[in-house]
Formats: sequence, structure tokens, C-alpha cells
Amino acid sequence: MNIRMVRFILGWVLRFESIFLCLPILVAVIYGERQGIAYVIVALLCLLLSWLCTLKKPEMNRLCARDGFASVALSWIVMSAFGALPFVMTKEIPNFVDAMFETISGFTTTGASILTNVEALSYTSLFWRSFTHWIGGMGVFVFIMAVLPLMGGTDLNLMKAESPGPSVGKFVPKVKDTAKILYSIYIFITVLEIVLLLIFGMPLFDALTSTFGTVGTGGFGIKNDSFASYAPALQNIVTIFMVLSGMNFTFYFLLLRKKFSQACKMEEIRVYLAIIAITGILVCVFTRPYFATIGATIRHSFFQVASIITTTGFATTDFNLWPQFPKTILVILMFVGACAGSTGGGMKVSRFIIVFKTIRKEISILIHPRTVKKIQMDGVSIPHETVRATNVYIASYFMVFFISVLVLGIDNLDFTTNFTAVAATFNNIGPGMELVGPTSNYAMFSPICKLILCFDMLAGRLEIFPILMLFSRRSWKRL
Amino acid sequence: MNIRMVRFILGWVLRFESIFLCLPILVAVIYGERQGIAYVIVALLCLLLSWLCTLKKPEMNRLCARDGFASVALSWIVMSAFGALPFVMTKEIPNFVDAMFETISGFTTTGASILTNVEALSYTSLFWRSFTHWIGGMGVFVFIMAVLPLMGGTDLNLMKAESPGPSVGKFVPKVKDTAKILYSIYIFITVLEIVLLLIFGMPLFDALTSTFGTVGTGGFGIKNDSFASYAPALQNIVTIFMVLSGMNFTFYFLLLRKKFSQACKMEEIRVYLAIIAITGILVCVFTRPYFATIGATIRHSFFQVASIITTTGFATTDFNLWPQFPKTILVILMFVGACAGSTGGGMKVSRFIIVFKTIRKEISILIHPRTVKKIQMDGVSIPHETVRATNVYIASYFMVFFISVLVLGIDNLDFTTNFTAVAATFNNIGPGMELVGPTSNYAMFSPICKLILCFDMLAGRLEIFPILMLFSRRSWKRL
Repeated sequence: MNIRMVRFILGWVLRFESIFLCLPILVAVIYGERQGIAYVIVALLCLLLSWLCTLKKPEMNRLCARDGFASVALSWIVMSAFGALPFVMTKEIPNFVDAMFETISGFTTTGASILTNVEALSYTSLFWRSFTHWIGGMGVFVFIMAVLPLMGGTDLNLMKAESPGPSVGKFVPKVKDTAKILYSIYIFITVLEIVLLLIFGMPLFDALTSTFGTVGTGGFGIKNDSFASYAPALQNIVTIFMVLSGMNFTFYFLLLRKKFSQACKMEEIRVYLAIIAITGILVCVFTRPYFATIGATIRHSFFQVASIITTTGFATTDFNLWPQFPKTILVILMFVGACAGSTGGGMKVSRFIIVFKTIRKEISILIHPRTVKKIQMDGVSIPHETVRATNVYIASYFMVFFISVLVLGIDNLDFTTNFTAVAATFNNIGPGMELVGPTSNYAMFSPICKLILCFDMLAGRLEIFPILMLFSRRSWKRL
Repeated sequence: MNIRMVRFILGWVLRFESIFLCLPILVAVIYGERQGIAYVIVALLCLLLSWLCTLKKPEMNRLCARDGFASVALSWIVMSAFGALPFVMTKEIPNFVDAMFETISGFTTTGASILTNVEALSYTSLFWRSFTHWIGGMGVFVFIMAVLPLMGGTDLNLMKAESPGPSVGKFVPKVKDTAKILYSIYIFITVLEIVLLLIFGMPLFDALTSTFGTVGTGGFGIKNDSFASYAPALQNIVTIFMVLSGMNFTFYFLLLRKKFSQACKMEEIRVYLAIIAITGILVCVFTRPYFATIGATIRHSFFQVASIITTTGFATTDFNLWPQFPKTILVILMFVGACAGSTGGGMKVSRFIIVFKTIRKEISILIHPRTVKKIQMDGVSIPHETVRATNVYIASYFMVFFISVLVLGIDNLDFTTNFTAVAATFNNIGPGMELVGPTSNYAMFSPICKLILCFDMLAGRLEIFPILMLFSRRSWKRL
């Protein structure tokens, strides 16, 4: 591993973290909260460490795939560790493991909380908590790359490790320009949602935090009942923006380039919207007796479906009380996840399309052994490498998944709780079922189980391999 | 599809079923039970239909892979339908869907029952029920091939479809000889277990049915408490024979050929035994407070571990009452399953080895992009085709799995019940957890859910693709 270069990159990440921390400090000043002091201290600490790490630029700035993956994985861990410090220092989350859980949950846009009473937090910490979603949603490296040219032409290895989905599409030849376009779209959607929420009467602070949670597909709420107490119109706006944030950003890029027909033909977008429509209607049918009006049924059903498939995790109702069929739909949507190249988590719709087509191809080979058939998506055949990587991803996914469920067994909670806790963290959703349902939280897990869930959140956000690689001794060999 | 040839094959399967039915008829004669009449009628019916189907041998006896798969899938369905008739006619299981469930459960060596009171059945039906395990364990086509040369050189396509595991090993060049060797080993193990059980004091009828359930890795018991009321020595014998039946039969073949060192080096056998040892010890540690003595803890723990990993499904204790950690171990073992080329179900140990090695290879490629590494097993590199098929198998496996869990949701039972019901049927085990735990049964499911579980049992036994292919319109196109 090119350790000097990794250290240099970590330095830059810390510098940006100190900049990000300025926003909660600003909130502290506005609300006159003394919790702001902790944020100032941590920001200065990050700045100091960043300065030490970037004192001299390493001569060898080559960054191979391995180093890119390691840098990203380590950066996310370091970023979370420092991001957790203010919670500990303000004594709002005195236990470091808990604070780390909450921060990793924030950066990975999971939204799983160990807090029983969210409303007891200061505005400053509530803001920071939601803002981590916004940073994590599009990715900190994508941000850094959009702002400054970090290292020659090897940035793609960083972006590959951080961007979700089976293959990383570059919109334009330069990584830097791609990153800029991504963040421009991201900021545009963010601003649009804030404005709409304000127009429909949401207070500014709520609008900001809700938007961070929505567009980052995070799901941290600032109220104990998540989104249940907001007006129906606000809930519907959030539903729409959750769906929009879960779409492949290539779609928006194509729209920007006025390639409308190409955008509308994107298979992943079509399948994604079809899944939302079909499962939404099914949930409506089965939850109809639980709501007073048809309107409320539709609103709550689609909110929950959008919240889970985009892996946001907001809730307007306690879906844990629903009948088993719509509940199982939600559990399965946890695994499907949003589109590749969106801010959402899960296994990604495009992976399911690839898998489905692979199975169909396999069956057709069994029927006609001599057919030569290439798997296509959007009219282009998918490279063999992508298909293979997708299959290996799914295998590793379920391996990590079941090992996590097994270890969680030591806490002796019920199987559904353990299973959905892993599903909700590994897919970066937040709430699961039973004891980790939308009205509960993750406080009752033992520290060791919390660490396993932290691992799952990071592995889910970075798509397993960057995190798994940290456990390979060969990754740490010096160059 | 070569429909004439498929019909001809179905005819032969029915002929063998009528022969198999003679055994319960013999039992009826011995015990003087009038239920035997139903079995006589069904046997004659099978014989008549068989005669009609095989009146003239089709001129074109070519059997491509597609036809082989379709024949096997259809044969298993037809075999189960006729096997279910006696239960309906004797009114012991008056509902046909229930009788079909019980018979499919028998032939697929699942052992899931819809009977609340097993002990109410006649000896004749108890015998037939257990005997279906023995037939299904090694496979009816393997049996037919061992006995008569059915069709030229294309038998391999039938054996491929019926034998479990990622790749079908032929011991000897001729399929017929391979089938003979397989059944010889199978009969030897069967006789050995019967003799041992008799020596340790089990009544003959119990010894026969228990042995059919053990060596076929089925799990139908003839007592309501499964294996709990038998003497400890008998339980230990069954533990050992379950483990033996879950081993890859190549191991025994190598022993027969006196290739002892090669046999002992088989990776799958080593990993399989290691998993049993490790999980067995872990279960012992966590269930120690539940049993009076250390001896009982070890006996019950290893019985349950062996019963689940080999997908047999016998129980000596209600493991549903255990703490969550050992319970989760059992749930995960449900998926692991026995060795390929054994009578057991599940995903098979060798698939896990392949997947594990693929993941390790993928990580090593990420670390050193230029390494060229072949995945090896037992010192031989695994063909690319096998790796690909394994990955596709796992993807289809989880797709079928989650769709089944979803549909089961309509019965509005809890998630753990649905999840483990699918796990226990799809992996051909039998008992799951909660409402389908070892002291319960599958009677409470609605007919539609029972049919889904029937589908899962067949898909699990025939490893998904032969059954999935029946749903492809192209399979049914005439040649």
C-alpha cells in the first residue's frame, strides 16, 4: 500500500470535515447553543491533523485500485470517528460506541439511531446529524474531486470505490467534471426540495434537516415520530423527492443534455418506477383497513414504499403493525434498494436486472445449448466483467449478511429483529421490523452487536469490497 | 420438446412407482390392514398408465439437455401425484393438496408434514411415507438407470438434472455403472443402519422407517415427538448415519477403490466435517443450561446440527426453545446443506467453497489487478462454467427464496415462521422455527401457500433450473 499517499488523502478528508463542521457551528451561533464549542474544538482538531498529514505531498502519487479502495474505506472510518466526537463531548451521546454508531449511520445515509428521545438533542447536533446524510449521500470523495484536482489521473479509483452500483459511468471524460455535474444536480434537487417544503409551510430548520435526510436517502428525523406529525402535503413532497433521489443520476444528466428519449428509455429507471408503482398499489390494497380514507392509504403506502426502496427510512406510520404481506414487501424492497448511481443503498435495481437477465440466459442455454447470447442493458451488451462482479457481489452480500445475523444472535433477541436489523443497516435504510421497527431504535443492542452493525453500514455504503479488503493482509503490504 | 420421448420416460417412471408400491402392500398384508387395498388400486393404475405410455418406443430417442430436465421435473410431479393417491383414498389425508404436500415432502426428502397426529396413520401409510424418502434420496432416475439401459448414451442429461451439486461426477465412463455403484453404496449404508438399530433394540418397523428417513436425509418420523423418545444410543447411531448420508458419495467410491489418501484429502468432506464439529461445539456451549448433563448436551446438540446440515429434519428436542444464537446457527446450516453428490439438500458445501474462493479471488484481483488466478478444488482447477453456474444458481436461489417468503405473507403469520418455512422446504429439511418448529407442522398454511411450498420442495431437490424451465414457453416447443 502506498501509505504516504493514503495518509495524504486522509489529511484532505479531515480538512473537508473541518469545513463541513462549520455549518453546525453556524447553527450553534444562531440558536446561541453552547454545544457549538465542542464542534469548534473538533473542527480545529481536524484542521490540525489535516495540516500534519498534508505537510508534504508524497513524491509517488500513483494510486492503484487497491490504494483507492483502502483510502476510501479508511477515510469513511476516520471521518465517522471525528464526526462522532462532538456528540461525546456535548454528552448528548456520552458513549463513544453509540456516538460512532450514530455518525456512521449518518454518513452511510442509513438513519438507524440509538437515541430514544431525538427531540432532546440540541439544534446544533440535530443539524450535524442530518447534514452527515447530505455529505454521505453523494460521497465525500466525489465532493473533494469536484472542488480540487487531487491526484493526476487516478481519481477514478477513488470514485469507483465510493460510487454505488455495478459499474461506474463517467458522464464526461474527466472525473473532475463528472463530479462537478453530479454535485450540481445534487445541490439543485436539495434547493428545490427546501424551497417546496418552505412554501408548504415547514419551518426552515425542519425543511433543511428533512431535505438532507431525503436527498441523501438518509432518514434521520428531528422528531421522535419521524415524519408522522407533518402535514399530508409535506409528506407527499418528501415521497416525491425520495423517489427522485433514488433515481440514477445519469437520468438527470441525460435530461440536462436534452437527450429526453434516451433518458426515458433507461431500463433501470423504468424498472425502478414500475417496482414502486406495483408494490405501492399492493401495499395500498392490503393496508386499506388500517387507514380512514383511501387518500390516507395511498399517501402512507407510497411514502413507506418510497422510503424503503430508496433506503431513506423515514416513516409516517408504524408499518410494524401492518399485516405480514405488505410487511414482507417492505422487507424485500430493503434488499432491492435504489438505482445505481443514486444516493440510495441496497443491492441496486440494475443488479437485479442483470441477475434476472443472467438467469434467463442460463435457462435459455439449458434449453438451446448452442445459443450464443449476450446480456444487454439499454441496448448495449453488458461486459462479462460486470456480470461476473455482480454475481460475486451477490454471493459476498449474502455471506456478510448471514454472518452478521448469526453474530447478532448472541444478544438473544428474536430472529425477525436480528434479520431486519442487519437488512436495515447493511442496505442503509434505518428502521427494520419488530424491536427495531420505526417507533423503536437500536439502543438495546450490546456494544459488540452495534459494532457489527457499524461494519454492515459501512460495508453496505461502500459495497462490501473496499471494507472487506481492509481485512486482507496483502492490502497492507508496503509498496 | 421431444414429447413422445418424455411420455415414454414418464411411462417407465410410473412402472417403477407401481413396483415401489408393492412394499407398502406387503406391509399391509403383514399387519392385516385394509388400507392396503388403496395401494393395490394405485399400483394397478400406475401399471396400466405405464403400459399405455410405453406401448411403442419412439423412433427418435435423442434426449437433449432440455428434454432431460423436463422429463425429470415432470416425472417428479407425476410420481408425487400418484404417490399421494393412496393417502386420499384411505382418507388418512382426505385433502388432495395436503396429500400432495406430504408426498412431495417425502420424495424430495424434505420431511415437512401437514399431519398433526402422525401416530394415527396405518402402518402401511407410515411405511410408504418413509419409503418415499428412500426412493427420492438417491433419485428415481439413478435407480432406473442402474437397473436398465433406458436410452442410448443420453442418460447423462437425466442424471445431471436429478443429482445435486454444482457438477456431476461420473465415477466410471458409463452412466449405468455409475448409477449401480451409487445404489450399491446406498443400499449398503441402509442395511448397515437397519442392522445396528436392531442390535441396539429398536423394533423392526421403527428401524426400517427411521433408516429410510436417515439415509434419504428425509426426516419423516413415525412418532409425534420425532426422535425424542428413542434411547440415547439409537439417537447417536442416527446422528452418525445422518452425517454419513450427507457426505459426497465420491468419498465412498474412493474408499471402495482403496484410494484412501485421495478420499481423506477431499476438500468438501473436510469442510463439511469441520462445519459440523465447530457448529456442534458452539451449540453445546450455548445450550448447556438446557440439559441436565454434559452428555445429553453433546448428544442433543450434535443430533440437531447433523439433522439440519444434512437436511434430514429429525429432532430429539424442541430446538425452537433454545436461545437465539444456536437457533441462528441452525437457520444458517439450513442454507449450507450437505455435500454435493449426497442424498442431502441445501445449497451444498461445495458451492460454499466455490463461492468463498471466488470472493477471495475477486479481492485478490482488486489488490493485484494483474494476477491471473484459477480457482482450485482438490488440486484441480474448477472450470469457468462451474463457477458461473454456481453464481447464477445462488442468484436464482435467493430470488425464488424471497418471492416464496413474500407470497407466504398472505397467510399473515409471523416473518420468522414464513422465512424458516421456506428455508426448511426449499432446502429439503422439514422443521423450521416458531409455528413450523419441530413440535409443529405445516397444516395451518392455506392451500395456495402449501402449493408454493410444494414448488419450493421440488425446486430445492432438483436444484431450481429443471423446475423453472417448465415455466419457459420455449421448453414446450415441439421438436
